[in-house]
Amino acid sequence: MEKRNTVFIAKSLDGFIADRNGGLEWLEAVPNPEHKDMGYGQLMANTDAILMGRVTFETVCNFDCDWPYTKPVFVLSKTLSEVPKAYIGKVELVNGELKDIIESLNQKGFNRLYIDGGSTIQSFLKEDLIDELILTTFPILLGGGAPLFSSLPKELEFEHVSSKLHLNQLVQDHYKRKR
Amino acid sequence: MEKRNTVFIAKSLDGFIADRNGGLEWLEAVPNPEHKDMGYGQLMANTDAILMGRVTFETVCNFDCDWPYTKPVFVLSKTLSEVPKAYIGKVELVNGELKDIIESLNQKGFNRLYIDGGSTIQSFLKEDLIDELILTTFPILLGGGAPLFSSLPKELEFEHVSSKLHLNQLVQDHYKRKR
Repeated sequence: MEKRNTVFIAKSLDGFIADRNGGLEWLEAVPNPEHKDMGYGQLMANTDAILMGRVTFETVCNFDCDWPYTKPVFVLSKTLSEVPKAYIGKVELVNGELKDIIESLNQKGFNRLYIDGGSTIQSFLKEDLIDELILTTFPILLGGGAPLFSSLPKELEFEHVSSKLHLNQLVQDHYKRKR
Repeated sequence: MEKRNTVFIAKSLDGFIADRNGGLEWLEAVPNPEHKDMGYGQLMANTDAILMGRVTFETVCNFDCDWPYTKPVFVLSKTLSEVPKAYIGKVELVNGELKDIIESLNQKGFNRLYIDGGSTIQSFLKEDLIDELILTTFPILLGGGAPLFSSLPKELEFEHVSSKLHLNQLVQDHYKRKR
């Protein structure tokens, strides 16, 4: 069974995933009247489980919508000791070394993981645990905010797989780690 | 006559234009046996003059090759008081407010400017003086180095013009400032 850890995320031209106030309004600057999902649905259909950071989890909890995930969600947290009541059965907490967490998920049959959240993605990259990057670039320079990438102990080479243009403005690039 | 200030530059996936040692070896990680220029020649043919920072100028001076420019080159510097002997007739020094420098170049008929050098590009962006960005992304995370972008006083929206794939690995995106 194919194992892979995939990032699928929107970023500004200058590499931010949220603006200085943590806001995502800039994602709405490009009109999307038909609510195109830019391949998110297809990715989810080929995902066994979602592994996200606590901050992303709490952000999703605060979205004014129903629980958006149809796949098991694991929340990486050093600080949460239990799942908030409303989310029992929806998410499971995980903690520890990333490699061990991945191995444990793989052993349970969760092989194709969707990795979400800025600092979670950064931690995975620091340990060279990301196999695929699917980056959708919005044509805006935010000039500050939460960066997608951070410092790395070594350079990581990727291979370009494909590029797509969505909504005539968003360039979505698919990269695979060169191993 | 069309006036525009254009950036044409290579960057890593994580937005660096040079690695931690100022090196550019990573640009050679993607084989380019036929020395394709990725549109640089065409851009130069439609450029009236080059405006670059002092650091970039000194970098080019140290390249082991003949002077590579066929258009007038203006070097932005607060510290150089005169053009080094070997480059008299090849470059001219400029200094002062960016807007004044551009206006003065425009008045001399240099309307289509190629803006080069990390900190020069950043200064131009801070004053919203860049009209076009042509960014060629190499599929590598450097994890540190000289960043292409820096903080901005305000968000800058661009429009996607076109994307090209070069050498099967390099995504080149062309953006225009939305004004």
